[in-house]
Amino acid sequence: PETLVQDIMTTDVVAMRVDDDQEDVARQMTKYDFLAIPVVDEVNRMLGIITYDDVMDVLQQEATEDLARMGASEPLGQRYFNVSILNLIRSRVVWLFLLAVAATLTVNVLSYYEEVLEQVVSLSLFIPLLIGVGGNAGAQSATTIVRAMATEEVCPRDILRVLFREVRVGILLGSALAFVGFLFVWLFFGLDMGMIVSTSLIAICTLASLVGSLMPIIAEHFGVDPAVISAPFVTTIVDATGLIVYFIIARAIFGI
Amino acid sequence: PETLVQDIMTTDVVAMRVDDDQEDVARQMTKYDFLAIPVVDEVNRMLGIITYDDVMDVLQQEATEDLARMGASEPLGQRYFNVSILNLIRSRVVWLFLLAVAATLTVNVLSYYEEVLEQVVSLSLFIPLLIGVGGNAGAQSATTIVRAMATEEVCPRDILRVLFREVRVGILLGSALAFVGFLFVWLFFGLDMGMIVSTSLIAICTLASLVGSLMPIIAEHFGVDPAVISAPFVTTIVDATGLIVYFIIARAIFGI
Repeated sequence: PETLVQDIMTTDVVAMRVDDDQEDVARQMTKYDFLAIPVVDEVNRMLGIITYDDVMDVLQQEATEDLARMGASEPLGQRYFNVSILNLIRSRVVWLFLLAVAATLTVNVLSYYEEVLEQVVSLSLFIPLLIGVGGNAGAQSATTIVRAMATEEVCPRDILRVLFREVRVGILLGSALAFVGFLFVWLFFGLDMGMIVSTSLIAICTLASLVGSLMPIIAEHFGVDPAVISAPFVTTIVDATGLIVYFIIARAIFGI
Repeated sequence: PETLVQDIMTTDVVAMRVDDDQEDVARQMTKYDFLAIPVVDEVNRMLGIITYDDVMDVLQQEATEDLARMGASEPLGQRYFNVSILNLIRSRVVWLFLLAVAATLTVNVLSYYEEVLEQVVSLSLFIPLLIGVGGNAGAQSATTIVRAMATEEVCPRDILRVLFREVRVGILLGSALAFVGFLFVWLFFGLDMGMIVSTSLIAICTLASLVGSLMPIIAEHFGVDPAVISAPFVTTIVDATGLIVYFIIARAIFGI
């Protein structure tokens, strides 16, 4: 009974600053398994505490926001059936428009190569397949890196290490697809198309891994939520650049 | 001191069954703000407890898994830099191949309409734009519904309510895009192409919202993780069906 508080207290305290992000609090609490964490101001005056139940809510909310942004919509902020049709549209329309405007780039690229398309109409048959594969490979890299940054496994200064890893993954995935793709396309569309499609698959998968891992890191560096550089956004960029690669390869192989 | 445990205990206990999913535990704990929850077997014998710190780890882990699957890769299960290049490839190659095989559907669709493409080469200019918009609209619906099911705001028996909402959203988003798209395409590519592209935008956005919201609900109904019916998977289906819609509209308007 005569023991004072100062005799039993811990003096090496982990505290959060009042202006920290709620995600940082969640990370600290998860790391140290705290029940509660004190919140202090810039001169270490205690302003309040955050408890484990608040943190569980924050973790849920942050996951919901990241998922929404990865799918190119704004988080709804309330239960699905409580959101009006108008607000559902609001959460999606801006990104859908921005991505559609960005996608007009693909119209420009194809217009530029329209003469090549006129000469070899069968080139157009593989456009959705190639940009689809590129989009998927880009989305795979992007989601991996976005999540790795959210859990602080990767930070912007790791950029070169990440790019080196992802580019190797892209080359190898592209080569595997190219091998199977070459046999299939050669069989049904001839040797020239087989070579064009398989070379394009390698180039586009490499490009997609590069763009997909680079964009979230750049976003984080500039203080933008990396999840906003969502899979669809990466896809749109890979679509346009992938088409250019495809036509460059096609012109080289057909000699036109 | 003479008070027995039975006098102070709570008898109305929320407990988890030993064979419950870890996601259910996380949901119960988040809902009731418990510090710990007992785990019992089928005859209510206590086997252990789960504490709040385990739940915080589960919440993080489940969010990581859902995000990975939405991006068409398997969860890594460990820190990014600890995963070898070979295992990164393993986490992606199966989905990338499956999606590429599914995407060969688009090659079939375009082959079927190759004669139309030969007659009107400029139809191919809008293929990436249209399937891009369809993919984005589908991903928006899919991510919204996947998350709403993960947080138990939506369950499979809500299917008709969800579809009715999402289809209205799709029609309205498609109409907004069609209005802007019509002016742009009319100006640069003529009235016929303007009508074809804008009508297709409405049809494809509606179709995408339908597929994007339907697929996760069907997956949940059959006990498959809805996140696996990922945005890229929805995209691939919307790509192929969207192209069919586009060519049906084009043939009707050009009368070929």
